[in-house]
Amino acid sequence: MVQDFLSNTEYYYTPPELVQEQSLIISGEEVKHISRVMRHEVGDDLYVTDGTGYLYVSKIEKIDKRVIHCSITSRRFFEKQFDKLTVCIPRLKTADRFELAIEKSVELGITDLIIFDAERSLARGDKSERWSKIALAAMKQSLHTHVPSVTYFKNIRELKNYDGTKLVFEQNASITLNEIINNRKKYFSDNSKTFFVFGPEGGLSRKELESISYDALVNMNRNRLRSETAVIAAVAIITSALSK
Amino acid sequence: MVQDFLSNTEYYYTPPELVQEQSLIISGEEVKHISRVMRHEVGDDLYVTDGTGYLYVSKIEKIDKRVIHCSITSRRFFEKQFDKLTVCIPRLKTADRFELAIEKSVELGITDLIIFDAERSLARGDKSERWSKIALAAMKQSLHTHVPSVTYFKNIRELKNYDGTKLVFEQNASITLNEIINNRKKYFSDNSKTFFVFGPEGGLSRKELESISYDALVNMNRNRLRSETAVIAAVAIITSALSK
Repeated sequence: MVQDFLSNTEYYYTPPELVQEQSLIISGEEVKHISRVMRHEVGDDLYVTDGTGYLYVSKIEKIDKRVIHCSITSRRFFEKQFDKLTVCIPRLKTADRFELAIEKSVELGITDLIIFDAERSLARGDKSERWSKIALAAMKQSLHTHVPSVTYFKNIRELKNYDGTKLVFEQNASITLNEIINNRKKYFSDNSKTFFVFGPEGGLSRKELESISYDALVNMNRNRLRSETAVIAAVAIITSALSK
Repeated sequence: MVQDFLSNTEYYYTPPELVQEQSLIISGEEVKHISRVMRHEVGDDLYVTDGTGYLYVSKIEKIDKRVIHCSITSRRFFEKQFDKLTVCIPRLKTADRFELAIEKSVELGITDLIIFDAERSLARGDKSERWSKIALAAMKQSLHTHVPSVTYFKNIRELKNYDGTKLVFEQNASITLNEIINNRKKYFSDNSKTFFVFGPEGGLSRKELESISYDALVNMNRNRLRSETAVIAAVAIITSALSK
């Protein structure tokens, strides 16, 4: 993320296998958007990311019906901003609000998401394809260059198999998010992962909580927030505190 | 906001003129919700706020078709948490996303909102009645006891007539929100107001910026965020930093 790219820039995505030393190809849905919606023409400059951190300034050389050919003018690599953070979001009652939590997390810089069916989730099942699309769109929208990974858990107890610090957001917890932030050395490290687990409407069950073997239960500064608001607010506060 | 009220509690609203020393009346849309949806009966306890900071623990004495009569068991007063903060949100392109910014701001504890038509706003006009409804619902949802005030400005230059510190969120600003937070004594005071002004898609115009006579232009920690995300994230970060 850099300042000078900010305002009117749009990012396009193409997978790394379509990028060569001096040229790249854009295919799929992006083609229509670039040529029909944005009305770009041969000779125009495009910002293209391959989702692995690279941003290519590219010039359109040829527009076919399904493929756009570009030459690469320059390339730049960006580190992942929060590569040690994983946000774990349960399926929520309303799809809109649930997808909002994904979109906003990614906009704010999160690149690792775990989606899980909570015991009290009303909606269930793996829709990672759709969630990945939402995450990818949010990545481009916010000018990030790392494709977010979206992993689905049928049950949050699968988190047991992952190493790292586990923080669970729980309305009635005694530690506030501010205390976690003020004590960040204890909960965040450059060498290990930190997982933030959120609950669905009605919260996580006692059984689920026990299965996580968490390091701390955390509340959102004593506010009662809707599930998706808790995710968005916590992610905003944490990424802001950890950003350099 | 108190811990012990949190989890399964629901708040109902009745205006202060319907509250007496030992009894209160609930009328309007709340009645149907209480009796039909929540299926409350005579003898049940309700938490009722008058929106001026008071929370009444009340017992249902009588349910009429349009009115519910309650006796007051106890009352408690809560101070406004962020009475010196005003959030100024422009009308945004998508109503959903715009209303989300209102809802989330209130959930996070904001009680003073200014909505304005920005030069680059695509949607325009005063819908304060609808916005106030959204704000009131969010107040109840998040167990707050102060009815949010929603003021409409046809033009943000009206802010000139208000005293206080004015911070404008601008993508290309050189000061980050973190710097504002770290330097909070300069920008926040118990004795005067602080206004946060956000821009619509495309930002505020130069003319609008000049008309505000702002104290600082602030960026969201170098992220490019959708307009509504900027509002929600900034409000989450600020209210968290200022909460005791």
